Amino acid sequence: MKKNERICAITKILTDHPNQVMTYNYFCQLFDASKTSVCEDVAIVKNTFEAMKTGRIETVPGAAGGVRYLPVLSETEERAILLEIAEMLKDPRRQIQGGFLYYSDILSSPYYAERLGKIIAGKYIGQGVQHVVTTETKGISVALESARVLNVPMTVIRRTNKVTEGATTSMNYVSGSSSKINTMYLSRRIDLEGKKVLVIDDFMKGGGTAKGMMNLMEEVGAEVVGPCVIFVADAPEEKLVTQYLPLLSMQMDTKNDSGEYVEISLYEK
Amino acid sequence: MKKNERICAITKILTDHPNQVMTYNYFCQLFDASKTSVCEDVAIVKNTFEAMKTGRIETVPGAAGGVRYLPVLSETEERAILLEIAEMLKDPRRQIQGGFLYYSDILSSPYYAERLGKIIAGKYIGQGVQHVVTTETKGISVALESARVLNVPMTVIRRTNKVTEGATTSMNYVSGSSSKINTMYLSRRIDLEGKKVLVIDDFMKGGGTAKGMMNLMEEVGAEVVGPCVIFVADAPEEKLVTQYLPLLSMQMDTKNDSGEYVEISLYEK
Repeated sequence: MKKNERICAITKILTDHPNQVMTYNYFCQLFDASKTSVCEDVAIVKNTFEAMKTGRIETVPGAAGGVRYLPVLSETEERAILLEIAEMLKDPRRQIQGGFLYYSDILSSPYYAERLGKIIAGKYIGQGVQHVVTTETKGISVALESARVLNVPMTVIRRTNKVTEGATTSMNYVSGSSSKINTMYLSRRIDLEGKKVLVIDDFMKGGGTAKGMMNLMEEVGAEVVGPCVIFVADAPEEKLVTQYLPLLSMQMDTKNDSGEYVEISLYEK
Repeated sequence: MKKNERICAITKILTDHPNQVMTYNYFCQLFDASKTSVCEDVAIVKNTFEAMKTGRIETVPGAAGGVRYLPVLSETEERAILLEIAEMLKDPRRQIQGGFLYYSDILSSPYYAERLGKIIAGKYIGQGVQHVVTTETKGISVALESARVLNVPMTVIRRTNKVTEGATTSMNYVSGSSSKINTMYLSRRIDLEGKKVLVIDDFMKGGGTAKGMMNLMEEVGAEVVGPCVIFVADAPEEKLVTQYLPLLSMQMDTKNDSGEYVEISLYEK
């Protein structure tokens, strides 16, 4: 392969394998090229990605060294995407009675799911996350994209006990907004014992679901990272979880008490 | 930008924008380069992708011409992935009473979801699919990946009526395997009227869910493409839908009537 073709191939392979070390030896054998030239090629790819501000490329030195692609977004891109979503959510037609906003279409769109996944993964990459979990349904697309960037499996916690999950571990949880008791179910075929698990949910109001997921993770012996939630409602101020990372914050209309969200903004601690 | 860097950038941009025409003009302006050199660069990328058998690159000629990346798998890759999944499913520990196999972990893994998405998208790409729908929950990851490759939105049809979906269109359906009547719900905020919609489901036994989805699509004025199902059970032989495309076929143990699947194989019409 000529240098141009090697650079094209390296770019494609790295892009297709996020957060995975591809060794120099692998590329040397693939291209039947010297380590020196592969290193030169990788350097060009690294600099180009930097110039394009399209993710980060890390090189791992040493004999068994290699290169890893982290498709995380820059702070500027992250702000831009989140503000874009915030703008969409300000459309009054998205208001739903009972203090909800319609956003299923945004989270399930490949475009936003991928970008939100990159944003979330970027906040936890390098922390040794081994698994991602979410509770069905609206957060699944973003959880999958986060798991893809982190290069780990993703598991969906069910809200009803499904025969297709086989035996399950169940956890009751109290919805923080109402006082209703619900149950969530995790297949016993998923072994999370001793694993670092990133907990993702789409929306947090009282924090009941997040708390339930954290209790469930504790029950199966997992170490929780997060929870990370995409949207957090400002009310109730007191959540059932203390440590959580939201991306966007929704302010309820307290002046007219219309039960509508009047402002959606980047979350600031 | 030097030629090397342009080739790296073109590869990255095309990989990040599946099934989307990126015009030569766009690249010319981005690189401040002549169309001739951009066309040369694209040709190198095209040939390299072909040599690597990693998706297909199509060039659109003409003044407003450009290039499109289709991340579809080769027949060989497709067979390999599907047979790999079939092998995993033969593990007796995956048998679940009542004629089910445990495969949630496979469909929700970024690795297999991405590849299954590429396989499914590859079967419908070029047919003008404008939207992908699936019914929660296990098929969502693969539906998202199919939608990403097709570069169209994805919508999840709910099995319960959720306040967060706002007003919904509901459709009753009879489970083909039992005679139980269920209802599925599509948010009225999703406008599928006159749209070509690819219907995806993870598993087909009697075809009740698929039939329900097709009826629902008809109800909202959409034109159905598919349905495409990942797994189809060989029994009952008579399905409630006639036109459907499965990827893998599951043969029930009829000899000993153990209610277990004894063979999983590539689906052959």
